[in-house]
Formats: sequence, C-alpha cells, structure tokens
Amino acid sequence: MTDPVLVEVLRGAVVESRHRGAVAVVDADGASVLALGDIDRPVFPRSAVKALQALRLIETGAADRYGLTDQELALACASHNGEPGHVATAQAMLARIGLDATALRCGAHPPMHMPSLVALCRAGVEPSALHNNCSGKHAGFLCLACALGADPRGYLEPDHPVQREVKATIESVTGATLGDDCRGVDGCSVPTWAVPLKHLALGFARLGTGHGLAPERAKAAARLRAACATHPWHVAGTGRFCTEVMQRLGARAFVKVGAEGVYLGTLPEAGLGIAVKCDDGGARAAEVVMAALIMRFGKLSEAERAAVDHLVRPTLRNWNGIAIGALRPTAILVG
Amino acid sequence: MTDPVLVEVLRGAVVESRHRGAVAVVDADGASVLALGDIDRPVFPRSAVKALQALRLIETGAADRYGLTDQELALACASHNGEPGHVATAQAMLARIGLDATALRCGAHPPMHMPSLVALCRAGVEPSALHNNCSGKHAGFLCLACALGADPRGYLEPDHPVQREVKATIESVTGATLGDDCRGVDGCSVPTWAVPLKHLALGFARLGTGHGLAPERAKAAARLRAACATHPWHVAGTGRFCTEVMQRLGARAFVKVGAEGVYLGTLPEAGLGIAVKCDDGGARAAEVVMAALIMRFGKLSEAERAAVDHLVRPTLRNWNGIAIGALRPTAILVG
Repeated sequence: MTDPVLVEVLRGAVVESRHRGAVAVVDADGASVLALGDIDRPVFPRSAVKALQALRLIETGAADRYGLTDQELALACASHNGEPGHVATAQAMLARIGLDATALRCGAHPPMHMPSLVALCRAGVEPSALHNNCSGKHAGFLCLACALGADPRGYLEPDHPVQREVKATIESVTGATLGDDCRGVDGCSVPTWAVPLKHLALGFARLGTGHGLAPERAKAAARLRAACATHPWHVAGTGRFCTEVMQRLGARAFVKVGAEGVYLGTLPEAGLGIAVKCDDGGARAAEVVMAALIMRFGKLSEAERAAVDHLVRPTLRNWNGIAIGALRPTAILVG
Repeated sequence: MTDPVLVEVLRGAVVESRHRGAVAVVDADGASVLALGDIDRPVFPRSAVKALQALRLIETGAADRYGLTDQELALACASHNGEPGHVATAQAMLARIGLDATALRCGAHPPMHMPSLVALCRAGVEPSALHNNCSGKHAGFLCLACALGADPRGYLEPDHPVQREVKATIESVTGATLGDDCRGVDGCSVPTWAVPLKHLALGFARLGTGHGLAPERAKAAARLRAACATHPWHVAGTGRFCTEVMQRLGARAFVKVGAEGVYLGTLPEAGLGIAVKCDDGGARAAEVVMAALIMRFGKLSEAERAAVDHLVRPTLRNWNGIAIGALRPTAILVG
C-alpha cells in the first residue's frame, strides 16, 4: 500500500518536495473518523508515548511520595530543548530521590535550543545527560524504580521492573501486543516497540477522555494532561510546536512529537485520538499534518483558528529572512 | 507517477522509515543507463550545480586574473562546513578583488561543523556571511562580477550580468530551458531554477567528460574537477559525504550535494552523469542512493569498494553510541 502525499513543500510556485504518510483519527471506542494510508503497519512511536510511559509514575504513588511538581510531571512527558529551566527541573526530580545526573543512562547531547547551546559553549560547559531531551522521562523512570523498590541501575533493560511496567501499560492503553519482533532501541537507549498507528490513536483517545481506562488510570492520565496544559514550555520549549499548540489551546489539545516523523495527540473535547507517521521520518511534515488535523477536528473558535493557522501553512524563509516558500497540507487532510 | 522506495531506515529488524525518489544515470550523449521514478519532473538542483555556476569564473579569465588557487576554486564549488580553513579561504578570495565579508549577500548562519560552532561561541564571535556554506560560491560570483566590469553590489539579482551568465551556462550544459515559471530563490538568495532530473544528469555527464562541451568549457570543467579532487575538504569539510567520497576515490568521482535531497555526480571514467532527488528532501537517503550508484557504476577496485561500503549501508547509533539500526538501499538501486 502506497501512503498518500500529505504535505507539499513549495519553493516559489513549484513543489520542491513531497511527504507521504499515514493518519489515524479514532474515538475512544476505536471507531475510525479518518484513516489515510496504511494504519495497520507497526510504527515506532518513539518519544510520542512519553505520557503513556509516565502513567505508572502516578498510579504507583511515586509522584506523590516524592512530591513531584506539575512542572516535573510535564518534564517526564517531554522531549525538551535542554534550556536552563529544563535542566534544572530534571536535576530537581533526581534530587527528590537522592540521585544526580550520574544516574541517567540516556546519554548526553547538546541542547536543541541554539541560544542555550551558545550559552553553554560560552561558559565552557560540556553538555550532560541532563541536556538530553529525554532527561525528564529518565528521571521519572528512576523515581518509578525507587517506588517499586527496584535497583535503579538497570532501569533501561527490557526485563527491569520499570520497563516491564511501562510495556504492560502501553499494551493495555493501546490494545496492541508488543512482541519482541517489533522491539528496537530508542535514541535514549530505552526499549521501544512498533505499534500499529490505529492502536496509537486509540491509546491517545483513551488518554484524552479516560474512556476505556480503569478509574485510577483515567485519573493519572487527566493529571498528566493537566500538568502539560499548565506547563507546556516544560513539554518541549521555546519555539517548539508542542509547546505552541498547548500554549494556544490549553487543555483542548495534548500533542507530542516522536522522532522519525511521528506525532500523537488527543482532542479531549472532541473525544478523539490522532496518530501521524510521516513515512520518511520528516518532522516538518508531521507538524503540518497535526496542525491541519487540529484545525479540522478541534472544534476551534475563530480566534483559535487564527492563532494556529500559521502552523498549518508555515512560511519558509532563507538566511536573509526572505520568504522563499511554504509548507502546505494536501486536500485529503484539509477535508 | 509514484516514485519508488529507494532507501529504507531500519531500527532493529523493523523498517522505521522509507524514502522515495527518482534517479537518472545517463552518458554524455544523453543515453539512459538507469531511470527510476519521474526523471522528467523539474527539480531544484540547489547547491548541487555550484560547479556549473563556477564555469564562467574560469572561462572569462577571472580565476587567472585574480590568481585564484585550486583551494579557492574548490571552495567556489562548495557547500562548506564553516570550519576555520573554509572561512579563511573565502576571505582570501574576496581580498583578491579588494572586497571583504561585507560584500557577501548570502546571509549568515552558524557553522554546520559542531566543533567549529563551539569554538566560535567560546571565542564570543558571531557567525558571519563567511561561515555561510555558500560563501565560496558568492566570493566566486563577486570575482566574476569584477571580471565582467559589472557593479558587484547587485550580483544576486536575476538580471545582473553574473546571474544571466550563470543561467545561460546551466541552460547550455544541461540542455534545459530555464523559464521564469520554474524560478525560485535559494537559501543563499541567488536565483535557482528547477530542471528535469535527466537534464541534470546529462549536464554532469558532460561536466565529467567534456563531451558535448565547447573546448574552453571542457577545459574549465576539467580544471574545476581537478581542483575538487585535489582539495575535497574544501568542497564540504570534516565528516561530510562529498569530501569522503572524493578523498577515497579522487578524480574518479565528482559528487555534490544540494539541499532538499538532491545529489549530482559524475563518474568520468565510466562516462556517466548521475542525478538523484529524494522526494521528501531527505539528505541521508540521497547520500545512500549516491553511494549505491557509485558502487554500481563506478568500476571500483575491490579496495575501493571496501572503502565506500559503509556509505552504502551506514550504521545508525544513538546518543550512547549503541548501534540501533541502519540505512539500506533497496534492490532496484543495487542492481
């Protein structure tokens, strides 16, 4: 099955590049609202399921026992920019369980946020694991390990209690079975499982509505969504799509990027879950697709539509700031 | 027409992403050796035609008049990393015509080479137009403007003598007509025209063999290729695909990347030109396609095949250095 073109990249009046992909929009009963392309093919959700990976942190009582703030819960769901505030929040999470950056196994990388990278270089400081965009998730895993009474040192291993609990949670929420044949290693070294797009959309419809979840899980999901809606900067950072969407729409949309062209989201008021995979892994296209779907299904006011319109058709500028083209969703997305 | 999948991205044993695209391989008479996907669709070659844009610099005598070195000619054909040596070479080119960085109209951007970016930040220096990957091409344009007796200030305008000469050269070498309906503005603000892939491949077959070119042009092409083969670091830089291919194969392959998934190349001994466009603009896939085509058509020795094999199937590693997957060309490319 050939997935359809979802986004075109224009230079002047010419289509310069094209992104294909698949989209599943479902309600919390799994009823399909929109299906484009192959939504049965397993897709690695990567960082887009961090909120699902954080559910046990709440359900086990770890968040309360260690007194995690809403900013810290948002960071547990984040792929953050490595800005100073993100780094400090990750550090604070670790301090709550008596650990520090040396306990993180995610690896170090430079901050994604250029001014933060420049400031770090100017200060002569090497990037650490705290700057890794996944450091909040990892700090959350370490909190969960402590709450479970497990040795935190092996927390990345697939058979560690933390990863076993996370896997069971994803299986339960998405309704998919995660077999070893669909397991890979993520950028931050945690196990990741490929899941059919329609199941990821269902998982996010449940995450957004609580429908189909046990009461404790529905409560944990609502708490994580509220933390992210209140602190969207902690979920990504300055200039980032996830942050801007939640800054503009608040609790009406929870969206989360994953590497390789994945976007997952839920529109709680519409009762919908959304799963996007850009075939080629292109993040720019996945953002446009998600923006177009929010516009289509989000029951937005005129003011909200105006506020997110530039995300649906972003202008492309060159190094001199000249507008040289644009991204645009294709007709099948706009509906 | 749906272009075929050319490159798969594996995570573990699962295909995580897929890149489609088109490929034209032709000889200097325009006879097709390999055609995959839509090779008639106009494609912006972007920076991949810098060598064609530099031909007039030699033919007009500008290179000799201003005493440009082979390193400087290679830089005129380059999308460089902004490493200190690249910056110094661009500066030296401008000094030969009594100009400096203020004459460049390409805009400033941080060096693509991370250690150079870090060093710049540590020194508290802002990136300038000299760090722009196109600064050598622009310095070449300014040399050409001076040689033509034209005011260098407007050298980016489509009706400036420099751009008129460049356009006529690309039309002549590729055999394509460049209409205003196919004109865009490039990342560095020069005009760029979309050209069918088969014409770009023909242009590079001619560039590599001199066949089909006037004697002066064939000589200029050979001089540029020799400069790039002798100084491949100046064409891109540390860790870059173009540089590594030419370091390993010398004058047997001239390859040049363009933005948005373009790669152009020529295998002079095989008498072939190669044009690649990854539909989605993915640079990683365009590199794999070019590597696979060099392997297939380059008449390489066993030692040379061993030296470029890692470019055909690059291993993907995460932030901890763990091998988590690979890129691989599909069967239609390997032949």
